[in-house]
Amino acid sequence: MQLDVFLTPDGVTTAELAGRVVVVVDVLRATSSMVEALGSGARALYPVASIEEALRLANTLGRHEVLLCGERRCVRIDGFDLGNSPAEFTPERVSGKTLVMSTTNGTVAVTLAAAGERVLIASLLNLSAVVHELTRGEAAVEPVILCSGREGRFVLEDAVCAGMIGNRLLDDRPGEWRLNDGAVAVTELARSPRLASPAAFFLQTRAGREIVAAGLADDLAFCAQVDRHDVLPVFQDRHITLAAIRIPQER
Amino acid sequence: MQLDVFLTPDGVTTAELAGRVVVVVDVLRATSSMVEALGSGARALYPVASIEEALRLANTLGRHEVLLCGERRCVRIDGFDLGNSPAEFTPERVSGKTLVMSTTNGTVAVTLAAAGERVLIASLLNLSAVVHELTRGEAAVEPVILCSGREGRFVLEDAVCAGMIGNRLLDDRPGEWRLNDGAVAVTELARSPRLASPAAFFLQTRAGREIVAAGLADDLAFCAQVDRHDVLPVFQDRHITLAAIRIPQER
Repeated sequence: MQLDVFLTPDGVTTAELAGRVVVVVDVLRATSSMVEALGSGARALYPVASIEEALRLANTLGRHEVLLCGERRCVRIDGFDLGNSPAEFTPERVSGKTLVMSTTNGTVAVTLAAAGERVLIASLLNLSAVVHELTRGEAAVEPVILCSGREGRFVLEDAVCAGMIGNRLLDDRPGEWRLNDGAVAVTELARSPRLASPAAFFLQTRAGREIVAAGLADDLAFCAQVDRHDVLPVFQDRHITLAAIRIPQER
Repeated sequence: MQLDVFLTPDGVTTAELAGRVVVVVDVLRATSSMVEALGSGARALYPVASIEEALRLANTLGRHEVLLCGERRCVRIDGFDLGNSPAEFTPERVSGKTLVMSTTNGTVAVTLAAAGERVLIASLLNLSAVVHELTRGEAAVEPVILCSGREGRFVLEDAVCAGMIGNRLLDDRPGEWRLNDGAVAVTELARSPRLASPAAFFLQTRAGREIVAAGLADDLAFCAQVDRHDVLPVFQDRHITLAAIRIPQER
């Protein structure tokens, strides 16, 4: 069985994703916010790349029907309803709502991932739900984990999250996996004692430092919560919804 | 002090390299062969991207004055004098000669690195010589380590080599370093017991498997030799030569 991890979307071809289950990771903060929004009862979330696209889509869907979300340089976009701090996506604000979210790196990854057979949205907040989906069936799933990175660059927090998922898969079927170079690297990183506490090592990352500098340090602790939600957001037809069948409660 | 490691050249800007000492790594096999060639007494080595460019440059320099080297799909280019197995670059063949080497990923990285103030060629074969150059002065050097990767993708062996260099720098001036995300990742990888033996983990890499499949398994053991040479190849004015002052023998 093959486990592929790509550390950025750059250079990944749609042919490599065809027929695969693709797991998209953008821990700080796009996929964390997406998971929080869906976990808080949002009906659907449309990820788009640009502010212009977000406004256009909001007009199409009906401006008063949607919540516009997104940030530039960590701060909420002027005129938008919500920023990109996952804590903003409370049930009070988003339950039953349709969201349009402007992100940069996360959207690139999600859009590329659409070449796969199925696209799952992963963060630490729903780690076990993703792992459960990948391991629950009789038939082997050979996933691709696609780290969003940042402007084509490696980011540490996505790699460690991918490695945490990867190690759970390796433990589930020991000795059965073949790993690409990225998968070897991230599973080793996720075993490192120095990277064992996300809330601590987030402070070492570029994204983490920028979020702290923007006065949003609480976001790091929020995004570090493993298994806060038992939900599986799936991207299909340009929007993200929860998988039709909720993951059984096992805990 | 800042240590930056980029896992591929993609997205790296010349502005980020300006004024920096840039260390280029392409363990399997371009920088290993470059180090071996210079360590075996080659006078100069011109890295070029394409076969056409290699032939053109050979004609300019005088076809009988140069050795043409390079591979496609691991195998020596038809009509060339040498392939890309470091063991081919013996003193008998290359001493005093000018070499023109056609590589793909290695050349991309070296060419980009030229935006730096100084460009060092690193592999496991000359690890300590590179570390010594970066640590010997009174003034702090804040290097950029540029992994060649492969077609814009992460490759494991370059990351581990970069991490081995990085850990030696951290040990040399403990507590003084700030690391970018890539530097945190590679220094952790290089501490992993599972990646401690290059000759063993090379077999897990895509490049390693392809080299074995091409019948060149001996190249892996060759490229895994730490500190085979005490030489410091430097790229300047389109070619690589040994640094004017040889590293003092300390071992």
